[in-house]
Amino acid sequence: MEEYKRIKRELVHHGVVVDFYKDTMKVPNGNEAVWDLVSHKGAAAVVAVRADGSLFMVRQYRNPLERITLELPAGGLNSREEPPEVCARRELEEETGYKAGKLEHLMDIFTTVAFCDEKILIYVATDLKPSKQNLDDDEFLDVLTYPIETLIEMIYKGEIQDSKTICGLMAYYQKYCISK
Amino acid sequence: MEEYKRIKRELVHHGVVVDFYKDTMKVPNGNEAVWDLVSHKGAAAVVAVRADGSLFMVRQYRNPLERITLELPAGGLNSREEPPEVCARRELEEETGYKAGKLEHLMDIFTTVAFCDEKILIYVATDLKPSKQNLDDDEFLDVLTYPIETLIEMIYKGEIQDSKTICGLMAYYQKYCISK
Repeated sequence: MEEYKRIKRELVHHGVVVDFYKDTMKVPNGNEAVWDLVSHKGAAAVVAVRADGSLFMVRQYRNPLERITLELPAGGLNSREEPPEVCARRELEEETGYKAGKLEHLMDIFTTVAFCDEKILIYVATDLKPSKQNLDDDEFLDVLTYPIETLIEMIYKGEIQDSKTICGLMAYYQKYCISK
Repeated sequence: MEEYKRIKRELVHHGVVVDFYKDTMKVPNGNEAVWDLVSHKGAAAVVAVRADGSLFMVRQYRNPLERITLELPAGGLNSREEPPEVCARRELEEETGYKAGKLEHLMDIFTTVAFCDEKILIYVATDLKPSKQNLDDDEFLDVLTYPIETLIEMIYKGEIQDSKTICGLMAYYQKYCISK
């Protein structure tokens, strides 16, 4: 397994949020293979829990799916150097209009490891304080709240299908709700 | 939210497993925005449960992460038209050398909805029968087995970070192990 070696990396396209590279690899049997690599700066997502136990969720239009999805508040790092906790606090406030009094790290995920390096750090935010929503120019979303049990049911019904949202909700449910 | 409209879609690069498009959108405030779209054929992943309750997992080198990961057996559809159940059965057999006697649908996920249309259908395979491993030319992997409780702990320790694997394992654990 140590015998994989990257021989060449070529930038094919510099996109708006991701870049596309063509990697030429030497694989363990000595052959060469060309692999796609989609490169992303990384992101943060937040399981934001209100005093009554309900969670903030956002509904927004997603172009790749051509429909509206229900997701955790989340957003991309401003740069690869931005501390993900700073990004998590900013995105929560911008999208929901609430600031996190307390922010705990829940888990990190890689969204699709075969061809993409995107890492999403997921946090649990509590002790929420009202602030001001502040969306990006091309960002339009609705903020809703749900009990965690309803959200878990929505996962099983296929009403929530976004991977970071499923990972964050299920890990929060198992760690904070079932085992406590 | 109905006011999003795609004005133009341009193919920027035709990759090995994904294609890169540049979408020009009209957003609800009337402005135009350019969004990246990475297009993938779709994939299937399998929670493969042996008679003793342990699960098959695969270790493989992942170029985007530059390291080895532990994942569910999985692979891409041969074409957008391939029935995902056929893909799930094939990938399980090719990667682990076992055939699924019984295959149940667990859930569907979209790996990263902001810029990619990749959908992964996740199945639970039981009644496994020995067959023959048959890997792709540039595919080299190790097959291992673990109890589900160990895998759930590995998620919390950050030793499993692949989103499809986390979604599949946690959903299987909650649906088949905790509630039964």
